[in-house]
Parts: sequence; structure tokens; C-alpha cells
Amino acid sequence: MSYVLHSYFRSSASWRVRIALAWKGLVVDYQAVHLVKKENLGHPQLGAAQAVPALTLPDGRRLTQSLAILEYLDEQHPEPPLLPRDPVARAQARSLALDIACEIHPLNNLRVLRYLVGPLKADEDQKLVWMRHWMEQGLRVVEQRLREEGFAGTFCVGDAPSLADCLLVPQLFNARRFEARLDGLERVLDIERRCLALPAFADTHPSRVPDAE
Amino acid sequence: MSYVLHSYFRSSASWRVRIALAWKGLVVDYQAVHLVKKENLGHPQLGAAQAVPALTLPDGRRLTQSLAILEYLDEQHPEPPLLPRDPVARAQARSLALDIACEIHPLNNLRVLRYLVGPLKADEDQKLVWMRHWMEQGLRVVEQRLREEGFAGTFCVGDAPSLADCLLVPQLFNARRFEARLDGLERVLDIERRCLALPAFADTHPSRVPDAE
Repeated sequence: MSYVLHSYFRSSASWRVRIALAWKGLVVDYQAVHLVKKENLGHPQLGAAQAVPALTLPDGRRLTQSLAILEYLDEQHPEPPLLPRDPVARAQARSLALDIACEIHPLNNLRVLRYLVGPLKADEDQKLVWMRHWMEQGLRVVEQRLREEGFAGTFCVGDAPSLADCLLVPQLFNARRFEARLDGLERVLDIERRCLALPAFADTHPSRVPDAE
Repeated sequence: MSYVLHSYFRSSASWRVRIALAWKGLVVDYQAVHLVKKENLGHPQLGAAQAVPALTLPDGRRLTQSLAILEYLDEQHPEPPLLPRDPVARAQARSLALDIACEIHPLNNLRVLRYLVGPLKADEDQKLVWMRHWMEQGLRVVEQRLREEGFAGTFCVGDAPSLADCLLVPQLFNARRFEARLDGLERVLDIERRCLALPAFADTHPSRVPDAE
């Protein structure tokens, strides 16, 4: 029995979990859920939020919310770790991850974009400007923190990937897809390059999963 | 030397940290930052994101992002805990907390509301409808999960407060402030009542902090 991951190739929250599973060397049964075709709505394996990712455990229980899944995987499969040992460095990794999970990603969710062009009658251009605004502003905060706070090494915190890197790389994929400006993000882009040289990141890329389009 | 908390009385993310500090019985030096007066902008103690809450440790280092701070406090001061022992129950507490931290709260941030009425030219009524939409939808997901997933007890997960409760209670305060509909949230409101009977929640309420207005 292995983990079952419900995922959508382009969902950056799904990619976070794909990275963590691969980093831990865990076998996973990949189940695609097409969000644009709304296959998530009413899906029996996704729970009340009807969102991906969802991870079903070998005993059938289901976990949701990508960061909660990452923490679970790190607790159950501690090697190689996704959090540093030092308590303040751990907080730093989590905090950078949350800078992406709470300050950037939720504003560019499909359901939020649908609200913008629906009830708020934003046009396609206003939608893109909105998306880029939050991605550019949020990624600048991450860059500044990496430069100023003294935790960054070859990765976001020290010299090994952590939760923060699992969130950063998918967010950058998303930022490029919507043509956000990435100038001035030297530290961020250096770290991305190092991550993408690792199989756990490269082999789980949206272009490499079974439902890639 | 004690912890220093930079907080705004009405910031629900700040209240989360106030609850956790009080729950752990920790002494804190409370420093108010008035968000509406934009005292956060350029503030030397808030870091790149210029947001509250920020927790300065006795050694002068600074932690940001409320959930990262809660995890830090729980690791450094394990009793009384803010996460259950069972690994799946821990994931459940984190996941419910993230349902609020990622799916509800970021959409109703001051900077997001400013963007709505600024570049997107939403009027006051559209702004309120937007806020209520995300709060009502998000809280319904939480209610449904509490009913269906078998973890809820007298609190969100089992019979003691956890991260999930630290996030739920401030979100409900916010929902009432903007007159979101709370009908059908029986489990959620039961849990809120039990939380607010505890000093860690009641004594840190926005109306009870030094900068209360």
C-alpha cells in the first residue's frame, strides 16, 4: 500500500507535495484531478474544500492542505529532513513558506480569479495585473528576507532544501506562466536553479507528471 | 528578558499569537503598531513584509508569520501543547488552521481591500460582499470538516485547544465585525464559546489589549 496523491499538474500547491514525496523517496499513486474541467467539484476523495492536493494514507485516511501534508511527511519520514534542526531556522523555513502560501498564492487561486472576472467584472488585463502585483510584491519580500535575515545559504535556509524551497519553486513556475517580472530576484533565482538541478524538483515539474498538457 | 510582540488590536493574525503566548503562560512585552495609521510601513522591527505580528526573541532575533510563530512557541514551550500527539490529528489541526490562514484571511487583508477599492474601483458594498463571500464559504468548509472528519471534540481537534482554535476564534471575530452570515455553523460556534471561556482566549481579545479602541 502506498500514498495516493490527488493532484493537478499545474496546481502549485500540488507540486509542493510532489516535491516532498520525491525528496523523501516515497512511492505514490498519482491521481489526476482536472481543475479547469472542475473535476474537483463533488469529488469523493477531496473532502469539504474540494481542492487539490489531497493525500490519502495507506490506511485510507485523507490529509488536505499542502503545508500540513509537508509537515506530516517530515514527521513520519524524517530523513532527509525538510526542516532544519535549529529552532529559529525552522521558524525561518516555515515563515518563508507562509510568505508564499498566505501572501501570494491565495490571491491567484482559480476561484479568486473567477470572482474577479465574475462579480467584480474585471477584464482579462486587470486580472493579469492583479496576479502579477501579488506575485511581484510577495517575491520581493522573499528576496529581501533571503538577503537580510542571514539564514539563506545555497537554499532558502542553509544548504539543504526545506519547506521554503518546496513552496518557492512552484510559485516561480506560476509567476513565469503569467509573465510576472522577476528582475532583482537574484537570490531567489539562484536558489531555484539549484533546486531544479535536484531530481525531487525536476522530476515532479508540471511538464513531467502524468496529466501534463 | 521576555518576548516582545508587535501587534495590532484588530489584526486577527496578531490575536492568534496573543492566544498562544497566553496559553503557554508566557510573559510578553506588548508593542502596538497601528495598521490603519500605517505605522507598520518602514517600521524597523517588522522586517521586509512590514506586517504584524512579529515576535522578537529575548536574544533579539525576530520571527514573522503567525503560524510559524505558533509552531516555534509549541516547540520551545511544549506544555500545554498546541498540537495533539497523534500524527494524523496533528495534520488535522494544521490543516484546519491553514483553511483559515490560506483560504479566508489573505483575501480580507487590508492591502487586498485597498487594491479592490483602488485599482479595481470596487465600491464599499462590493468590498463587503467580497469579504463576506470568502468568510462564509471558508467557514462553511471548516464546519463541514468538523462534522465529517471525526476529529472534532469539545475543540476543533479533540478536547483541548490547538492551532486550529487559535485561528478560528480571531477569524470569527472578524466575520462578525463585517456581518458575515454565521448560520449553520453550530460546531464552529460551540467551539468558539468554549474557547472564549478560557482566559488565554478571553484575556487577549481585541477589546482587552493595550491598544484597544
